[in-house]
Amino acid sequence: MKAIIINIGDELLIGQVTNFNASWMAEQLNTIGIEVLRINVISDTEDEIISSLKQSVTLADLVILTGGLGPTNDDITKKTLCRFFKTSLIFDTATYKDIVDLFVRRGLPVTEINKKQAEIPACCIPVRNLQGTAPGLWFENKGKIVIATPGVPFEMKAMMTDPILSLLKEKMTGDVIVHKTVLTQGIGESFLADKIALWENSLHQSVRLAYLPSPGIVRLRLTARGSDSKSLEKIIDNEILKLYSIIGENIYGYDTETLELIVGKLLEQKNKTLATAESCTGGYIAHCITKVPGSSSYYKGSVIAYSNKIKEGILGVKSETLGRHGAVSEETVKEMAVNVKEKFHADFSIAVSGVAGPDGGTPEKPVGTVWIAAASPCEVVAQKFSFGTNRSVNIERAAVNALNMLRKIILKYS
Amino acid sequence: MKAIIINIGDELLIGQVTNFNASWMAEQLNTIGIEVLRINVISDTEDEIISSLKQSVTLADLVILTGGLGPTNDDITKKTLCRFFKTSLIFDTATYKDIVDLFVRRGLPVTEINKKQAEIPACCIPVRNLQGTAPGLWFENKGKIVIATPGVPFEMKAMMTDPILSLLKEKMTGDVIVHKTVLTQGIGESFLADKIALWENSLHQSVRLAYLPSPGIVRLRLTARGSDSKSLEKIIDNEILKLYSIIGENIYGYDTETLELIVGKLLEQKNKTLATAESCTGGYIAHCITKVPGSSSYYKGSVIAYSNKIKEGILGVKSETLGRHGAVSEETVKEMAVNVKEKFHADFSIAVSGVAGPDGGTPEKPVGTVWIAAASPCEVVAQKFSFGTNRSVNIERAAVNALNMLRKIILKYS
Repeated sequence: MKAIIINIGDELLIGQVTNFNASWMAEQLNTIGIEVLRINVISDTEDEIISSLKQSVTLADLVILTGGLGPTNDDITKKTLCRFFKTSLIFDTATYKDIVDLFVRRGLPVTEINKKQAEIPACCIPVRNLQGTAPGLWFENKGKIVIATPGVPFEMKAMMTDPILSLLKEKMTGDVIVHKTVLTQGIGESFLADKIALWENSLHQSVRLAYLPSPGIVRLRLTARGSDSKSLEKIIDNEILKLYSIIGENIYGYDTETLELIVGKLLEQKNKTLATAESCTGGYIAHCITKVPGSSSYYKGSVIAYSNKIKEGILGVKSETLGRHGAVSEETVKEMAVNVKEKFHADFSIAVSGVAGPDGGTPEKPVGTVWIAAASPCEVVAQKFSFGTNRSVNIERAAVNALNMLRKIILKYS
Repeated sequence: MKAIIINIGDELLIGQVTNFNASWMAEQLNTIGIEVLRINVISDTEDEIISSLKQSVTLADLVILTGGLGPTNDDITKKTLCRFFKTSLIFDTATYKDIVDLFVRRGLPVTEINKKQAEIPACCIPVRNLQGTAPGLWFENKGKIVIATPGVPFEMKAMMTDPILSLLKEKMTGDVIVHKTVLTQGIGESFLADKIALWENSLHQSVRLAYLPSPGIVRLRLTARGSDSKSLEKIIDNEILKLYSIIGENIYGYDTETLELIVGKLLEQKNKTLATAESCTGGYIAHCITKVPGSSSYYKGSVIAYSNKIKEGILGVKSETLGRHGAVSEETVKEMAVNVKEKFHADFSIAVSGVAGPDGGTPEKPVGTVWIAAASPCEVVAQKFSFGTNRSVNIERAAVNALNMLRKIILKYS
């Protein structure tokens, strides 16, 4: 089954709201094997809605709309769907009962404007909305399905989860789609492409490959399409096995995993703790680690030593080290890592010191120069990186590399 | 000028990536007075790109594409644009120089695949990309402008900011649009709406108001459209003057200012320094502060005390204080703030301790309970907040409130 998503709303076109509805919906549809051909974001005008609908039903089997189902004058999806399906609004008593119940639960009276929410196009089946006043609208016509859902994310998600997705699953025929994403670190997109060119060119015919780069990371997405999900999974697993033999050391995880999640799981499994010392990343690594719920069970904390005096005074880096080698040096990051580990009574640590930019670079240590150290109970390793000139990207790349160095040193220590 | 945005990429259609590029771009275009008619998200296939382009150039004056400019096989935007504009690829030496420079800076060799990034359609003007290898492509044909930009957000944003938006501004005709955004903190959207309802209802006829809420902050965007930008600016300034008399104490800045930027400027002006001590925000406040270029001139650093032992051992919070009042208490955050200020020899400090969730709540201190302290050379103040149950939102709201408390205590100290 092929689908098109139509998101209706001026707030999306002026950039006031990011289209999280579309990505959530696309992911859900994909998971049950429905391919999303296009996502159209259009304004709250009848002509735009009609024109987008007309084109979409010719291209796809399923069209899902979001938005414009509210009770105010600027919400016109319902009356436009009446025009499109050549029908008119009727009062639906079951829907009205849901609306009354909702207001009773909130201790509020049902106003006239809310009563109008129970009017639905005569030729559709209403989809219950237990979170709000606007029912979903399910149309079937000439073998095509058109579904309108509210734009309020939690209302839309609730009715998609139950019952829309299961009803669509029942109607599914044809191909299924299987995805798997391989997460790589430490190799740039073009170098990666060079390295896996032979593998890529001999991929199984049902598999497509996509490169998804972000600072410090390249995700490789394998997509297979066919009739049987089990055999597709086998094909993908087999390809990934071959890929692993080429770039195994760059692969740190799969699908929606993150480095901070993986590192956290490893520490929990081994019942070990972590401390960090950051200079140029300025707390971003600590933030990544503590974003993970439950991180307080393995993360002790950090010293953000933004000035050299703090590196000396709080972290105990020797003044000779700073004087002789500078703050951005192998010697300094190693001392930072070892000292924070000791001071915080942690088993593992990472430390970062570098020039994030845009200022502060020297000919010897230009903007983008970053030293990272990782320490375990038995060793400390350090590595130098030369990133670019963009401050926020440098911070992100440093954090990703630091977390991956930490992952490797934890794996080594068993 | 009317525009259509085309985002190319299967990752958007399977919901793996949220379309932040579209909302950012739409906001930028709107700000300079360009109306976005539609946003089309399509797959990396020639037919889809051609069909979307064909339709878009008939409806809009400007079509901006993102994605598919990478060096790998799944990136087909460049060759598809050649087909669309009936042209072919030529090697651009200026672009190649930028690519070589980029790789030299990173200490990497330029591979064959990267050399191909210097090939551009013969009929376009390349837009320099100083952050990556793919140049932007600017086409003009039959009065229409088509611009292709990379899908990597920071590369796209850099080239949009300079030079694409200013070049588009020069080509603009017709009505001008003037925006001004008022930044408020410490009052929720619906309470704010109630408080300013009278003002909102009597806004000048040429002014439109939009509420842009994010955790802890509500931005109010005033937009005026007309023929003369000077008189529109006057009208908006006048409305903001009236607004200030109603909610002045909640207004912390305007337009693209951020709390960390404002706080940084204040500290620079007064030649004062700052240190922070974070528990539940886990480094996020330090990250916000150090995102600002030049922050090393006033920011000394932070202690992320994720465990009580660190609060005691490194920050010197008394064990009686922790024992009697707990880590999430007025007494503890005040000690954290005062001690980090002393230890780091800073003039100002903030400290945060709370229950970010999802676990760790108690009946007395449920998830969302956060204590924040701010200290100046002459006082320390603390405030309790009761946020919700979402971990990442709690972290963000705590940071925003802490930075605003800091702003206020710096302003008080003169």
